[in-house]
Amino acid sequence: MTGRDGGADIAPLGPFDPVIILVRPQLAVNIGTTARAMANGGLFHLRLVAPRDGWPQERAWFASSGADRILEEAKVFDTVDEAVADLHRVFATCPRPRHIIKPLLTARGAATELRAVSQRRLKAGILFGPERAGLDNEDMARADTLIRYPLNPDFMSLNLAQAVLVMAYEWYLTHDQTPERSLMTNETHVATKGEVTNFVNHLVHDLEKTGFLRNEQKKPGMVRNIRHLFARGEVTEQELRTLHGVVRALAHGRQDQ
Amino acid sequence: MTGRDGGADIAPLGPFDPVIILVRPQLAVNIGTTARAMANGGLFHLRLVAPRDGWPQERAWFASSGADRILEEAKVFDTVDEAVADLHRVFATCPRPRHIIKPLLTARGAATELRAVSQRRLKAGILFGPERAGLDNEDMARADTLIRYPLNPDFMSLNLAQAVLVMAYEWYLTHDQTPERSLMTNETHVATKGEVTNFVNHLVHDLEKTGFLRNEQKKPGMVRNIRHLFARGEVTEQELRTLHGVVRALAHGRQDQ
Repeated sequence: MTGRDGGADIAPLGPFDPVIILVRPQLAVNIGTTARAMANGGLFHLRLVAPRDGWPQERAWFASSGADRILEEAKVFDTVDEAVADLHRVFATCPRPRHIIKPLLTARGAATELRAVSQRRLKAGILFGPERAGLDNEDMARADTLIRYPLNPDFMSLNLAQAVLVMAYEWYLTHDQTPERSLMTNETHVATKGEVTNFVNHLVHDLEKTGFLRNEQKKPGMVRNIRHLFARGEVTEQELRTLHGVVRALAHGRQDQ
Repeated sequence: MTGRDGGADIAPLGPFDPVIILVRPQLAVNIGTTARAMANGGLFHLRLVAPRDGWPQERAWFASSGADRILEEAKVFDTVDEAVADLHRVFATCPRPRHIIKPLLTARGAATELRAVSQRRLKAGILFGPERAGLDNEDMARADTLIRYPLNPDFMSLNLAQAVLVMAYEWYLTHDQTPERSLMTNETHVATKGEVTNFVNHLVHDLEKTGFLRNEQKKPGMVRNIRHLFARGEVTEQELRTLHGVVRALAHGRQDQ
């Protein structure tokens, strides 16, 4: 999936949007792809705790697909404590928490809670651990709440940017109004039942002229089948126009024979 | 996020689980990371239509983080028509559909529908386009239904594996029973209100001995504040045991002074 993306369009949406905090990230490329994933979900605030290879790193910019402003405004800290000092709530992603007593949310549950925290004008951050080892026990002790994504328990391994993407996607959905199902109709509209009936009546009329419905016993059932076919869901005005044309062309062709 | 992942644990979950179809994928690495994303969401069936650099490609295996079986059992086709010939329903991911009349679903809506199709023992596939250009108009005409993810409209660019991950994640959630919120308690349980009350009563008793509650006018309010603090949510038995110990230690220390 590609798209028209401009770094200029990425802007901080609100001071109380969640902060993504990468704890001891190892690869600059992953910091770049994290910024891209954040931009996908409309997140802007990035913090880095002790990035292994220092900061800034040119490779992060190469990997960010244009999410440059997120990288440019990223803040760097030496410790998790410093990185969360001005926040009111800290979440930690944690695929396999052990021996910890802490509220545990799914990504969706966490997104709902992050939205609620943001609406109360409190600042929240989400900790993501280093690529290999994940967050350690000391990092976890700084978090109020753990997040574990429901994923195939036999194959939980997500790379850093993908872990961030799932959270950014769920965050985006908490304020997205897209209906789960719609009809993609750019230059047309859903036809009314009257328009559909009108078309079917024309079709039946033309079919009668060809002799296709000459068996009077079978005719009602055949016509009913045709009506069923066009009553299976929404039909567009554009489709009906095309169908009118198809029937006209077929009927005309047959008359020419 | 990392984890214990074994290729051996990845197996086809059902013959009617959705098929992921990469149409003219360009980079073998992206085929590998796609397999990984599929494994994350419990998807197994991968088809490739005219992969640019041929198939198999060693680089895909390097990138799959152990999702080898998915790659080994991937099927290759020359055309989209051949790749979908045995399927009953075809979905196509499409960030910016234009001039097309088609049902349009979100990733979540599509996952719900894919699950319903699978339960009817029908086979469905999801088309993902090439990295740069996405699916073309001819590809789209093979799909019954379009899928567009709700994402930041100013930054829709997802790489191939991330697009697959979002769909695989939503597919996994349609049969996942994880509660959105739980308490992570490995070796302990949520304390009953009686256990909490018992602790608070002990605390108040010890505080009375120290003289901390000697102001009889302020005492009811102070005790109430303490009760409020411990009535803010669930407390675990383990935490109560620790707190009992803390209070004993503090009270003992004070008596020793």
